[in-house]
Amino acid sequence: MGGDFAPQVVVEGALQAAQRGIPVLLCGDCDVIKKGLDQLYAEWRILPIDIEPCTQVINMEEEPARGVVYKKDASLVRAACAVKDGRAAAMVSAGNSGAALIASILIIGRVKGVLRPALGTFLSTHNHEVFCLDLGANTDCRADFLEQFAYMGTIYVRCARAIAKPRVGLLSNGHEPYKGSLEVKEAYRRLEHNADLLFVGNVEARDVFDGKADVIISDGFVGNVFLKGIQGVLRSLFNWIKYEAEKSWLMRFSAWCAWPLLKKIKQATDHQRANGGLLLGIRSPVIIVHGNSKADGIYHAIIAAHDAVQSKLSERYNIELEKALRESGKKEKMFAPIVHEKTGPAQDVL
Amino acid sequence: MGGDFAPQVVVEGALQAAQRGIPVLLCGDCDVIKKGLDQLYAEWRILPIDIEPCTQVINMEEEPARGVVYKKDASLVRAACAVKDGRAAAMVSAGNSGAALIASILIIGRVKGVLRPALGTFLSTHNHEVFCLDLGANTDCRADFLEQFAYMGTIYVRCARAIAKPRVGLLSNGHEPYKGSLEVKEAYRRLEHNADLLFVGNVEARDVFDGKADVIISDGFVGNVFLKGIQGVLRSLFNWIKYEAEKSWLMRFSAWCAWPLLKKIKQATDHQRANGGLLLGIRSPVIIVHGNSKADGIYHAIIAAHDAVQSKLSERYNIELEKALRESGKKEKMFAPIVHEKTGPAQDVL
Repeated sequence: MGGDFAPQVVVEGALQAAQRGIPVLLCGDCDVIKKGLDQLYAEWRILPIDIEPCTQVINMEEEPARGVVYKKDASLVRAACAVKDGRAAAMVSAGNSGAALIASILIIGRVKGVLRPALGTFLSTHNHEVFCLDLGANTDCRADFLEQFAYMGTIYVRCARAIAKPRVGLLSNGHEPYKGSLEVKEAYRRLEHNADLLFVGNVEARDVFDGKADVIISDGFVGNVFLKGIQGVLRSLFNWIKYEAEKSWLMRFSAWCAWPLLKKIKQATDHQRANGGLLLGIRSPVIIVHGNSKADGIYHAIIAAHDAVQSKLSERYNIELEKALRESGKKEKMFAPIVHEKTGPAQDVL
Repeated sequence: MGGDFAPQVVVEGALQAAQRGIPVLLCGDCDVIKKGLDQLYAEWRILPIDIEPCTQVINMEEEPARGVVYKKDASLVRAACAVKDGRAAAMVSAGNSGAALIASILIIGRVKGVLRPALGTFLSTHNHEVFCLDLGANTDCRADFLEQFAYMGTIYVRCARAIAKPRVGLLSNGHEPYKGSLEVKEAYRRLEHNADLLFVGNVEARDVFDGKADVIISDGFVGNVFLKGIQGVLRSLFNWIKYEAEKSWLMRFSAWCAWPLLKKIKQATDHQRANGGLLLGIRSPVIIVHGNSKADGIYHAIIAAHDAVQSKLSERYNIELEKALRESGKKEKMFAPIVHEKTGPAQDVL
C-alpha cells in the first residue's frame, strides 16, 4: 500500500508475476486490491494470487520506526509477519524504505552476527559488473559497519557469480589512502589488514565502472547519492537528446538513426528493471524498490525475489555469511581487540 | 608541478591562455618549464609569461598539511605566496587538492567569518543550471558548515547570475525531512528556520538536474562522489556507444548518424571544460582542477580565473559574503544561541 503509485502499480506488477506462475501474497486493503485486479484481468481468481487484508498504511512521509511500532496492521508489517510465519518466502516493498528496513530487522530478523543489514545491487555496463552496497539502508556508518559490508558484498558476489575472491573497493573522494571521511579512513585501515578479503583500496566514484573492483562498499547515504546521481544524469541525458532532436531536422534525423543504439542502452540502464535492492543480512530475501517504481519495476523485483528463493541463493548466502562473521569475530578477539571509538565530525582545527 | 600530467599540460594550457593575452605566472622548475615552452612555441618570450623558479613539489600522494608546512619552496606554496603578495591576482592548481586548500587557507587567507572554504561549480543541462558545493574541499562537515555553504552558494549565484533569491536544496537520500545523515538532518532543521535563505528542502541526487533548486549544498565527501559519479557514468556511456558501434554494421551506421548529436552533448558535459571548481570563501580566486586535467582543462580554468578577477565578481562576492555572514552571526547571537553539539555516527540502537 506504500509507494508513490500504490496500490495500482503493485497490483499490476504482481499480476504479471502471477501470470508467469509465481505465487503472490498481496498485503493491503482487500477491496481496493480486488477492484484493481478485476480491472486488469477478470479471470485473476484462477491465478496463484492471495490477499491478506490489512487496515493500515505506513505513509512515505512517516517516521519509519514509529510507523512499524505503532501500526501493527500496516501492509508492510503484515507482509513481514507473513515471511516470518513462513506463509511467504520473500518480501518486496516499494513503500517507505526506512520502515521496510526496520520491519525486516524487528520482525524477520537479522542473520547472526550482522550489525546492520545493507541494501545491495549489481550495477553493470557493457563489459563490467560491480556489486554496490550499502545503497541507502544505513546513514552515518561506522568503520566496523563498512568492514562488515565488505564481508557481505564479498560473500554475495562469491555465491551469486562464483568469483572465489572478489576484489573489494572502498568508495572515496580519491584513491589515495589519506582521502575520505573519518570513518572511511578508519575502514581503509581495517580492511588493509584484513586477510579474509581482497581489498584493492579506495575507488573514486568516476572509476566504479572501470572494472577495478567487483564489490564497492560505502555508507548508505553516500551510496544512495551515488546511485541516484547516476540515474538522474541518465534521465537528463535522454531528455537532452529529445530536446536537441526537436530543434532541427538534422538533429531529428540523427536521433532517429541513433534510436536502435540509444534504445538498447536505455533499456540496459533502465532503473525500473534494476532498482530492486536486496537487503543483505536479513534471514529471508527482502527486496526494496524505489517508491516511484512502475508495474515493470515491481514485476522485476518479484522475479528477483522468486529466483533468490528458488535457486537457494539466499539460503546459501546466509549460511556463508554467518560462518564468515563468526570466524572474523573470533580472529578479532584473538589478535586485535579493536575498540570502537566514537569519532565525531571534523573539529574546527584550522 | 603537481597533477598527473604536470608540468607539460600546465605549460601548454598556460601558453594557450597567454596567447589570448592573459598574463600568466608559472611557478615550478625553471628549466623544465622553459624547455616545455620552447618545444611548444619558440616565440613564447614575447608573450606575457613569467616564471617563478621553485625547487620543491608537493606530490599527489603526499599528506596535504605536511606538504604545505614543510615544503616552503613547493610550486603550490610559492603560487599562493604570489597571490598573497599581489604579484598574481588568482591561483589555478591541478595538483594535490588538499594541499591547494590548505595553502589557500593558511597563505591567502579566508574571508572573514568563513568557517570552511568550499569548492563549488555550476553543473548544467540543456535547460537548467545548478550551483553545487561543496564538491570536495571538506569531509565530515558539521551542520553549521552546511548552513554556511548555503549562504556561500546563495550569494555566489546572486552575484554571478543575478538571481535575487536563489532556491537552496540540501542533497540527501530522500526528499522527506527525516531523511539524511545526522548532520544533514540537523542542517535541515537550521535551514528551515533561516529567513535569509530560500530553502526548498532535501533534494535527491536524481532530482538535482530537475530545476527544483539553483543551489545544492552537500558535505564535500558526498558532493565529490556525486560529481565524479556523474563524470564516470558519462564516460562509461560513451565507451558503451563505441563498443556497440563496433559490434554490427547497423549499430555503426546508427552511431555514425548520431555523431553530431552525441558530440554536442559530449562537449557540453566534458569535464575537461567544466572541472574547474572555484574555492569559495578565500580572499582571492582559487581554482582547483582535477589532477588528470589536460591542457584544455587548465586553459579553461585560467580563463575562468581571469574572468572572475576582471569582472570583479570575486571581489563583489567576498564583500557580500562577509556582510551576510556578519549579519547572520549577529542574528544567531541575538535570537538563538545555538550550541554546536558534537554528534557522532549512529550508535547501535537496534
